[in-house]
Amino acid sequence: MTPSMISLFCFEFAEKMMQDNDPSHDLEHANRVHKLARYLAGKEGADLDIVIPASIGHDLIVYPKDSLKSKLSATHSAAEVAKFLQGIDDFPRDKIVAVMYAIQVCSFSKGIVPTTLEAKILQDADLLEAVGAVAIMRTFASAGSMNKTFYSPEDPFCVYREPDAHKYALDLFYTRLLQVEKRLHTQTARELARPRTKFLHQFLTQLTLELPQTNK
Amino acid sequence: MTPSMISLFCFEFAEKMMQDNDPSHDLEHANRVHKLARYLAGKEGADLDIVIPASIGHDLIVYPKDSLKSKLSATHSAAEVAKFLQGIDDFPRDKIVAVMYAIQVCSFSKGIVPTTLEAKILQDADLLEAVGAVAIMRTFASAGSMNKTFYSPEDPFCVYREPDAHKYALDLFYTRLLQVEKRLHTQTARELARPRTKFLHQFLTQLTLELPQTNK
Repeated sequence: MTPSMISLFCFEFAEKMMQDNDPSHDLEHANRVHKLARYLAGKEGADLDIVIPASIGHDLIVYPKDSLKSKLSATHSAAEVAKFLQGIDDFPRDKIVAVMYAIQVCSFSKGIVPTTLEAKILQDADLLEAVGAVAIMRTFASAGSMNKTFYSPEDPFCVYREPDAHKYALDLFYTRLLQVEKRLHTQTARELARPRTKFLHQFLTQLTLELPQTNK
Repeated sequence: MTPSMISLFCFEFAEKMMQDNDPSHDLEHANRVHKLARYLAGKEGADLDIVIPASIGHDLIVYPKDSLKSKLSATHSAAEVAKFLQGIDDFPRDKIVAVMYAIQVCSFSKGIVPTTLEAKILQDADLLEAVGAVAIMRTFASAGSMNKTFYSPEDPFCVYREPDAHKYALDLFYTRLLQVEKRLHTQTARELARPRTKFLHQFLTQLTLELPQTNK
């Protein structure tokens, strides 16, 4: 099977499964992560048979963050992707476990450092979604869906306090978005991250010009 | 009463009323609009007795967009602010109607062109919230709360189609955010809008670098 055929099959499957996903974890998220992962795989010499299904299917199932099942999202996504790949006659059976592994360790919040190149690449591609303009869209979409305050009125830019991303959306810049670059595994991903990190700083600079300088 | 005292009283009142408002229409939105409106009022020579309560209270009550009561938000906000001002002994009675008028015509989607300077200034201040980094936060927070798709996968930047802001969050840039500058009433607001509009273009440019160039 060619990489393009695997992509096509996986997207057809994902399209059916992901209809109701939130906009931060929808088919376009899969599309972006897939493009990034393929690019990284090409540069770093990773196995596309593993990277393609893992990247398209890594957020196949996303339970809401406040759901008890939330921690099972990756395991259930991996299981569904595996079942799907088993149904494709030409897909190499011996690679399905590696696809499942990449999906299961992808989420950075789990704190697992992947041991395979393919899993590292998926994590890097997914991490690149947490930096740049795309990350800004996703950060505030999550804030909206959770009715979370945008920033601390007293100290929006965390100058005098520890960031608290559970409380303020903008604090996620300090706990995650601005940290992405140094958490990436591959040099190729680091190069992609650099202009995106720069844009996050531009966003913060622009906000300093727009927000009232004193409270009330 | 000094302007600072009116601000203080109105914020105390708003703080009680706005506890559950969404992050695009919360107390910090009132805070930002108030600061902008006071600045514009100073430059344009408007009456602060009217501008201050109107700006702090203009989104006092915000019914959800999908609620039948949605169209009543401004009317009910105006009525609550009027009731509150009537309870303040030192507030000039004859200005309460002008405060109500400014609040009632503020929402740009109603399409009413204000006839008083104070109402123009409130509309300008509120319109400045629809441009720049703050507008980006608010646009995607709304997308998240309504589970709206970020952009069209086929044509994110509306090159080959008419924008549809009901369907895609990014399309709001084309139907509203990038239009703000030419819809403002005062020269002072136009000057504030310019760097904010520029930042919207920077955001779109950055997105063109991040989004996959072809679909799937």
